[in-house]
Amino acid sequence: MESVKNGGMIVEDLHNEDHRQIEDIERSLRRIADLVKQKGREILAHFPITAPQFVALQWLNEYGDMTIGELSEKMHLACSTTTDLVDRMEKNELVERVKDKQDRRVVRIHLLEKGQVIIREVILKRQDYLAEMLDQFSGEQVDDLEKNLSLLLRTMIEQREVRS
Amino acid sequence: MESVKNGGMIVEDLHNEDHRQIEDIERSLRRIADLVKQKGREILAHFPITAPQFVALQWLNEYGDMTIGELSEKMHLACSTTTDLVDRMEKNELVERVKDKQDRRVVRIHLLEKGQVIIREVILKRQDYLAEMLDQFSGEQVDDLEKNLSLLLRTMIEQREVRS
Repeated sequence: MESVKNGGMIVEDLHNEDHRQIEDIERSLRRIADLVKQKGREILAHFPITAPQFVALQWLNEYGDMTIGELSEKMHLACSTTTDLVDRMEKNELVERVKDKQDRRVVRIHLLEKGQVIIREVILKRQDYLAEMLDQFSGEQVDDLEKNLSLLLRTMIEQREVRS
Repeated sequence: MESVKNGGMIVEDLHNEDHRQIEDIERSLRRIADLVKQKGREILAHFPITAPQFVALQWLNEYGDMTIGELSEKMHLACSTTTDLVDRMEKNELVERVKDKQDRRVVRIHLLEKGQVIIREVILKRQDYLAEMLDQFSGEQVDDLEKNLSLLLRTMIEQREVRS
């Protein structure tokens, strides 16, 4: 039936094929990320930490010291909820509150060694799981995956910097 | 210096290179997933919904109707916390409680149309963002990325089924 299609229909098919690919990539990325995340979190059962506490640790690990306001924004929580969370994390010796040296009215949450250890263990568990899953890939497939993911991430970071 | 390496050192180098690749893939997947997630959630500002409510919607959308116990396990929350969350979501008309037809003591949380619409909007926003980012990729790079991500996801799902 290819030959009877007019230009418009071919363009539409191309568009549909592009869109199908984007849907597929979005779905795969979302589900892969979920499965890797679940795998990494299995080890949290060995640590005295709740899920929201772990999410806060990840933000602090990724972006460095933050005020309660900044952390609340990242976690989409009310400041009062974040304050309670940080209180419990401070008692748990995962973080500490540190006053800004220039302006002592500004207080930031700082990740402590115990918090870093937990993050590191979760990431190692994620890496082990991925290594096991990629064991069945050829060297070339792993190279391609690494290159394309790295290019996608770079594009995202550059775009974000252009806009901000 | 390649020629002076002994067998053991070459094996170790290969091992290190493999590990570096796994670290890189894990990091890219984690950061890409975070950036796509943040982008999708930008539209949540237009909906009367909190972050934990959205996370619950996603689980119900992905796995279908669940009891409070099942949802609590997925979300790593205490059952009492999940009950409060579901109460607010029910008031918000995002979900409803449905009694099991076989065993009326079993109650499951069911996603309503309004909840589905929000999930769909977030996924469309994620797709738009990915399409924009992949615009700079060649057709072949997009094909490779799609194929390798799809293979990785299939491997993960198969492995999980083998183990369960």
